[in-house]
Amino acid sequence: MSVEIERKFLVTGEGWRQADAQRYCQGYLSRDPARTVRVRQVGTKAWLTIKGRSVGATRAEFEYEIPLADAEQLLKLCDGPLVEKWRHRVEAGGGLCWEVDEFLGDNAGLVVAEIELPDEAQAFERPAWLGAEVTEDPRYFNSNLAAHPFRHW
Amino acid sequence: MSVEIERKFLVTGEGWRQADAQRYCQGYLSRDPARTVRVRQVGTKAWLTIKGRSVGATRAEFEYEIPLADAEQLLKLCDGPLVEKWRHRVEAGGGLCWEVDEFLGDNAGLVVAEIELPDEAQAFERPAWLGAEVTEDPRYFNSNLAAHPFRHW
Repeated sequence: MSVEIERKFLVTGEGWRQADAQRYCQGYLSRDPARTVRVRQVGTKAWLTIKGRSVGATRAEFEYEIPLADAEQLLKLCDGPLVEKWRHRVEAGGGLCWEVDEFLGDNAGLVVAEIELPDEAQAFERPAWLGAEVTEDPRYFNSNLAAHPFRHW
Repeated sequence: MSVEIERKFLVTGEGWRQADAQRYCQGYLSRDPARTVRVRQVGTKAWLTIKGRSVGATRAEFEYEIPLADAEQLLKLCDGPLVEKWRHRVEAGGGLCWEVDEFLGDNAGLVVAEIELPDEAQAFERPAWLGAEVTEDPRYFNSNLAAHPFRHW
Protein backbone atom coordinates (compact mmCIF):
# COMPACT_ATOMS: atom_id res chain seq x y z
CA MET A 1 0.00 0.00 0.00
CA SER A 2 1.03 3.58 -0.56
CA VAL A 3 -0.74 6.78 0.37
CA GLU A 4 -1.42 9.12 -2.51
CA ILE A 5 -1.50 12.90 -1.86
CA GLU A 6 -2.67 14.57 -5.03
CA ARG A 7 -4.09 17.99 -5.88
CA LYS A 8 -6.10 18.60 -9.03
CA PHE A 9 -6.68 21.84 -10.99
CA LEU A 10 -8.46 22.98 -14.10
CA VAL A 11 -6.23 24.12 -16.95
CA THR A 12 -6.78 27.43 -18.71
CA GLY A 13 -3.82 27.92 -21.08
CA GLU A 14 -1.82 25.98 -23.66
CA GLY A 15 1.73 26.17 -22.20
CA TRP A 16 1.70 22.44 -21.34
CA ARG A 17 1.12 21.24 -24.90
CA GLN A 18 4.79 20.90 -25.87
CA ALA A 19 5.36 18.20 -23.20
CA ASP A 20 5.71 14.52 -24.04
CA ALA A 21 2.40 12.68 -23.95
CA GLN A 22 1.25 9.09 -23.63
CA ARG A 23 -2.16 7.64 -24.49
CA TYR A 24 -4.08 6.18 -21.52
CA CYS A 25 -7.13 3.92 -21.64
CA GLN A 26 -8.83 3.03 -18.39
CA GLY A 27 -12.03 1.60 -17.01
CA TYR A 28 -13.53 0.74 -13.63
CA LEU A 29 -14.52 -2.62 -12.14
CA SER A 30 -15.82 -0.66 -9.14
CA ARG A 31 -16.70 3.05 -9.18
CA ASP A 32 -17.72 3.01 -5.50
CA PRO A 33 -15.73 5.97 -4.03
CA ALA A 34 -14.89 3.87 -0.94
CA ARG A 35 -13.17 1.20 -3.07
CA THR A 36 -12.52 2.06 -6.72
CA VAL A 37 -10.91 -0.69 -8.82
CA ARG A 38 -9.31 0.65 -12.00
CA VAL A 39 -7.85 -1.16 -15.03
CA ARG A 40 -5.35 1.07 -16.86
CA GLN A 41 -3.49 0.44 -20.11
CA VAL A 42 -0.59 2.68 -21.20
CA GLY A 43 1.12 1.49 -24.40
CA THR A 44 2.14 -2.14 -23.84
CA LYS A 45 1.87 -2.01 -20.03
CA ALA A 46 -1.14 -2.34 -17.74
CA TRP A 47 -2.03 -2.03 -14.07
CA LEU A 48 -4.82 -2.83 -11.67
CA THR A 49 -5.23 -0.08 -9.06
CA ILE A 50 -7.42 -0.01 -5.97
CA LYS A 51 -8.04 3.21 -4.09
CA GLY A 52 -9.86 3.86 -0.83
CA ARG A 53 -11.95 6.91 0.00
CA SER A 54 -10.27 10.36 -0.32
CA VAL A 55 -9.68 12.26 2.91
CA GLY A 56 -8.85 15.78 1.70
CA ALA A 57 -6.06 15.27 -0.87
CA THR A 58 -4.95 11.90 0.65
CA ARG A 59 -6.04 8.45 -0.47
CA ALA A 60 -4.81 4.86 0.13
CA GLU A 61 -3.62 3.25 -3.10
CA PHE A 62 -2.65 -0.31 -4.09
CA GLU A 63 -1.22 -0.90 -7.56
CA TYR A 64 -0.31 -4.15 -9.33
CA GLU A 65 1.13 -4.56 -12.81
CA ILE A 66 -0.84 -7.11 -14.84
CA PRO A 67 -0.32 -8.75 -18.26
CA LEU A 68 -1.50 -6.64 -21.20
CA ALA A 69 -3.67 -9.53 -22.47
CA ASP A 70 -5.50 -9.63 -19.12
CA ALA A 71 -6.03 -5.86 -19.22
CA GLU A 72 -7.62 -6.09 -22.66
CA GLN A 73 -10.14 -8.64 -21.33
CA LEU A 74 -10.68 -6.78 -18.04
CA LEU A 75 -11.43 -3.51 -19.88
CA LYS A 76 -14.35 -5.37 -21.53
CA LEU A 77 -15.69 -6.31 -18.08
CA CYS A 78 -15.64 -2.70 -16.88
CA ASP A 79 -18.71 -0.82 -15.70
CA GLY A 80 -19.61 2.04 -18.05
CA PRO A 81 -17.66 3.50 -20.98
CA LEU A 82 -13.86 3.63 -20.87
CA VAL A 83 -12.00 6.86 -20.15
CA GLU A 84 -9.37 7.77 -22.76
CA LYS A 85 -6.88 10.61 -22.48
CA TRP A 86 -3.47 11.93 -23.42
CA ARG A 87 -1.30 12.45 -20.34
CA HIS A 88 1.34 15.19 -20.73
CA ARG A 89 4.15 15.30 -18.14
CA VAL A 90 5.37 18.82 -17.32
CA GLU A 91 8.28 19.46 -14.92
CA ALA A 92 7.05 21.35 -11.87
CA GLY A 93 10.45 22.11 -10.23
CA GLY A 94 11.72 20.72 -6.93
CA GLY A 95 11.46 17.15 -8.25
CA LEU A 96 7.70 17.48 -8.73
CA CYS A 97 5.76 16.88 -11.94
CA TRP A 98 2.46 18.09 -13.37
CA GLU A 99 0.37 15.43 -15.09
CA VAL A 100 -1.88 17.26 -17.53
CA ASP A 101 -4.73 15.03 -18.70
CA GLU A 102 -6.35 15.98 -22.00
CA PHE A 103 -9.47 13.84 -22.22
CA LEU A 104 -10.84 12.28 -25.41
CA GLY A 105 -14.16 10.81 -26.56
CA ASP A 106 -17.15 11.74 -24.39
CA ASN A 107 -14.84 13.78 -22.12
CA ALA A 108 -13.25 15.82 -24.95
CA GLY A 109 -12.80 19.48 -24.00
CA LEU A 110 -11.84 18.68 -20.41
CA VAL A 111 -8.21 19.27 -19.39
CA VAL A 112 -7.09 18.87 -15.78
CA ALA A 113 -3.66 19.01 -14.15
CA GLU A 114 -2.63 16.90 -11.15
CA ILE A 115 0.40 17.14 -8.93
CA GLU A 116 1.47 14.39 -6.54
CA LEU A 117 2.98 15.74 -3.30
CA PRO A 118 5.19 14.12 -0.64
CA ASP A 119 2.94 15.64 2.04
CA GLU A 120 -0.20 17.79 2.13
CA ALA A 121 1.67 20.93 3.28
CA GLN A 122 4.25 20.81 0.42
CA ALA A 123 4.46 24.16 -1.46
CA PHE A 124 4.66 24.14 -5.29
CA GLU A 125 4.87 26.69 -8.10
CA ARG A 126 1.70 27.47 -10.05
CA PRO A 127 2.28 27.71 -13.78
CA ALA A 128 0.49 30.44 -15.79
CA TRP A 129 -1.91 27.92 -17.34
CA LEU A 130 -3.19 26.64 -13.97
CA GLY A 131 -6.87 27.31 -13.21
CA ALA A 132 -9.12 26.68 -10.21
CA GLU A 133 -8.47 23.79 -7.82
CA VAL A 134 -10.98 20.88 -8.03
CA THR A 135 -9.22 18.31 -5.77
CA GLU A 136 -12.34 17.61 -3.72
CA ASP A 137 -14.95 18.02 -6.47
CA PRO A 138 -16.25 14.49 -7.20
CA ARG A 139 -17.36 15.44 -10.73
CA TYR A 140 -13.70 15.41 -11.76
CA PHE A 141 -12.88 11.97 -10.32
CA ASN A 142 -11.83 9.74 -13.23
CA SER A 143 -14.23 7.11 -11.86
CA ASN A 144 -17.06 9.64 -12.30
CA LEU A 145 -15.97 10.63 -15.82
CA ALA A 146 -16.67 7.03 -16.92
CA ALA A 147 -20.31 7.20 -15.78
CA HIS A 148 -20.98 10.94 -16.25
CA PRO A 149 -18.76 12.18 -19.07
CA PHE A 150 -17.97 15.89 -19.49
CA ARG A 151 -20.08 16.25 -22.66
CA HIS A 152 -23.26 15.64 -20.59
CA TRP A 153 -22.46 18.21 -17.86
CA MET B 1 -7.19 -14.97 -17.90
CA SER B 2 -8.51 -18.44 -17.30
CA VAL B 3 -12.02 -19.80 -17.64
CA GLU B 4 -13.42 -21.43 -14.53
CA ILE B 5 -15.93 -24.28 -14.88
CA GLU B 6 -17.26 -25.08 -11.45
CA ARG B 7 -20.30 -26.94 -10.11
CA LYS B 8 -21.58 -26.39 -6.60
CA PHE B 9 -23.67 -28.70 -4.35
CA LEU B 10 -25.13 -28.71 -0.89
CA VAL B 11 -23.58 -31.18 1.56
CA THR B 12 -25.74 -33.55 3.60
CA GLY B 13 -23.33 -35.91 5.43
CA GLU B 14 -20.10 -35.79 7.40
CA GLY B 15 -17.78 -38.04 5.31
CA TRP B 16 -15.67 -35.06 4.20
CA ARG B 17 -14.68 -33.98 7.72
CA GLN B 18 -11.47 -36.02 7.96
CA ALA B 19 -9.91 -34.13 5.04
CA ASP B 20 -7.19 -31.50 5.55
CA ALA B 21 -8.60 -28.02 5.97
CA GLN B 22 -7.32 -24.46 5.64
CA ARG B 23 -8.86 -21.30 7.03
CA TYR B 24 -10.00 -18.76 4.40
CA CYS B 25 -10.90 -15.13 4.96
CA GLN B 26 -12.27 -13.14 2.04
CA GLY B 27 -14.10 -9.96 1.21
CA TYR B 28 -15.35 -8.13 -1.87
CA LEU B 29 -14.32 -4.80 -3.36
CA SER B 30 -17.10 -5.34 -5.91
CA ARG B 31 -20.06 -7.68 -5.46
CA ASP B 32 -21.51 -6.79 -8.88
CA PRO B 33 -22.11 -10.24 -10.49
CA ALA B 34 -20.77 -8.90 -13.81
CA ARG B 35 -17.40 -8.01 -12.25
CA THR B 36 -16.74 -9.33 -8.75
CA VAL B 37 -13.41 -8.31 -7.18
CA ARG B 38 -12.39 -10.55 -4.29
CA VAL B 39 -9.58 -10.25 -1.72
CA ARG B 40 -8.69 -13.66 -0.26
CA GLN B 41 -6.26 -14.53 2.51
CA VAL B 42 -5.23 -18.15 3.19
CA GLY B 43 -2.58 -18.48 5.91
CA THR B 44 0.33 -16.22 4.92
CA LYS B 45 -0.69 -15.91 1.25
CA ALA B 46 -3.22 -13.65 -0.43
CA TRP B 47 -4.78 -13.09 -3.83
CA LEU B 48 -6.88 -10.58 -5.71
CA THR B 49 -9.39 -12.31 -8.00
CA ILE B 50 -11.69 -10.80 -10.60
CA LYS B 51 -14.53 -12.82 -12.09
CA GLY B 52 -16.95 -11.98 -14.88
CA ARG B 53 -20.58 -13.03 -15.13
CA SER B 54 -21.35 -16.77 -14.90
CA VAL B 55 -22.71 -18.41 -18.04
CA GLY B 56 -24.01 -21.76 -16.73
CA ALA B 57 -21.06 -23.27 -14.81
CA THR B 58 -18.44 -21.21 -16.74
CA ARG B 59 -16.92 -17.90 -15.68
CA ALA B 60 -13.90 -15.81 -16.76
CA GLU B 61 -11.38 -15.50 -13.93
CA PHE B 62 -8.24 -13.39 -13.37
CA GLU B 63 -6.11 -14.04 -10.30
CA TYR B 64 -3.07 -12.17 -8.97
CA GLU B 65 -1.04 -12.96 -5.86
CA ILE B 66 -0.59 -9.89 -3.65
CA PRO B 67 1.46 -9.14 -0.52
CA LEU B 68 -0.18 -10.27 2.73
CA ALA B 69 0.19 -6.76 4.20
CA ASP B 70 -1.78 -5.33 1.26
CA ALA B 71 -4.50 -7.97 1.72
CA GLU B 72 -4.92 -7.03 5.38
CA GLN B 73 -5.49 -3.39 4.37
CA LEU B 74 -7.70 -4.29 1.41
CA LEU B 75 -9.94 -6.51 3.56
CA LYS B 76 -10.71 -3.38 5.61
CA LEU B 77 -11.80 -1.57 2.42
CA CYS B 78 -14.24 -4.34 1.49
CA ASP B 79 -17.96 -3.86 1.06
CA GLY B 80 -19.97 -5.67 3.74
CA PRO B 81 -18.81 -8.25 6.31
CA LEU B 82 -16.02 -10.69 5.48
CA VAL B 83 -16.71 -14.33 4.62
CA GLU B 84 -14.77 -16.83 6.73
CA LYS B 85 -14.68 -20.56 6.19
CA TRP B 86 -12.71 -23.76 6.53
CA ARG B 87 -11.97 -25.29 3.12
CA HIS B 88 -11.56 -29.10 3.19
CA ARG B 89 -9.99 -30.75 0.12
CA VAL B 90 -11.37 -34.19 -0.68
CA GLU B 91 -10.01 -36.32 -3.54
CA ALA B 92 -12.70 -36.86 -6.16
CA GLY B 93 -10.88 -39.44 -8.37
CA GLY B 94 -9.73 -38.90 -11.96
CA GLY B 95 -7.44 -36.04 -10.85
CA LEU B 96 -10.43 -34.01 -9.62
CA CYS B 97 -10.91 -32.57 -6.15
CA TRP B 98 -13.92 -31.56 -4.02
CA GLU B 99 -13.54 -28.31 -2.13
CA VAL B 100 -15.92 -28.53 0.82
CA ASP B 101 -16.49 -25.09 2.37
CA GLU B 102 -17.69 -25.07 5.98
CA PHE B 103 -18.70 -21.48 6.65
CA LEU B 104 -18.17 -19.63 9.93
CA GLY B 105 -19.58 -16.51 11.59
CA ASP B 106 -22.84 -15.24 10.10
CA ASN B 107 -22.78 -18.10 7.57
CA ALA B 108 -22.27 -20.87 10.17
CA GLY B 109 -24.37 -23.97 9.40
CA LEU B 110 -23.84 -23.68 5.66
CA VAL B 111 -21.64 -26.32 4.00
CA VAL B 112 -21.21 -26.46 0.22
CA ALA B 113 -19.00 -28.56 -2.03
CA GLU B 114 -17.50 -27.35 -5.30
CA ILE B 115 -15.75 -29.25 -8.05
CA GLU B 116 -13.70 -27.59 -10.79
CA LEU B 117 -14.00 -29.36 -14.14
CA PRO B 118 -11.83 -29.28 -17.28
CA ASP B 119 -15.00 -28.93 -19.37
CA GLU B 120 -18.74 -28.67 -18.71
CA ALA B 121 -19.46 -32.20 -20.00
CA GLN B 122 -16.88 -33.89 -17.71
CA ALA B 123 -18.40 -36.76 -15.67
CA PHE B 124 -17.52 -37.15 -11.97
CA GLU B 125 -18.40 -39.46 -9.07
CA ARG B 126 -20.93 -38.24 -6.52
CA PRO B 127 -19.92 -39.04 -2.94
CA ALA B 128 -22.59 -40.20 -0.45
CA TRP B 129 -22.56 -36.84 1.35
CA LEU B 130 -23.37 -34.83 -1.79
CA GLY B 131 -26.74 -33.02 -1.77
CA ALA B 132 -28.65 -30.94 -4.32
CA GLU B 133 -26.84 -28.93 -6.99
CA VAL B 134 -26.92 -25.13 -6.50
CA THR B 135 -24.44 -24.03 -9.21
CA GLU B 136 -26.77 -21.42 -10.67
CA ASP B 137 -28.49 -20.31 -7.45
CA PRO B 138 -27.15 -16.80 -6.73
CA ARG B 139 -27.90 -17.10 -2.99
CA TYR B 140 -24.89 -19.40 -2.69
CA PHE B 141 -22.42 -17.11 -4.48
CA ASN B 142 -19.70 -16.20 -1.98
CA SER B 143 -20.17 -12.57 -3.04
CA ASN B 144 -23.80 -12.84 -1.91
CA LEU B 145 -22.90 -14.52 1.40
CA ALA B 146 -21.01 -11.34 2.37
CA ALA B 147 -24.11 -9.15 1.95
CA HIS B 148 -26.83 -11.70 2.79
CA PRO B 149 -25.37 -14.24 5.21
CA PHE B 150 -26.97 -17.65 5.74
CA ARG B 151 -28.22 -16.85 9.27
CA HIS B 152 -30.63 -14.25 7.80
CA TRP B 153 -32.13 -16.56 5.14
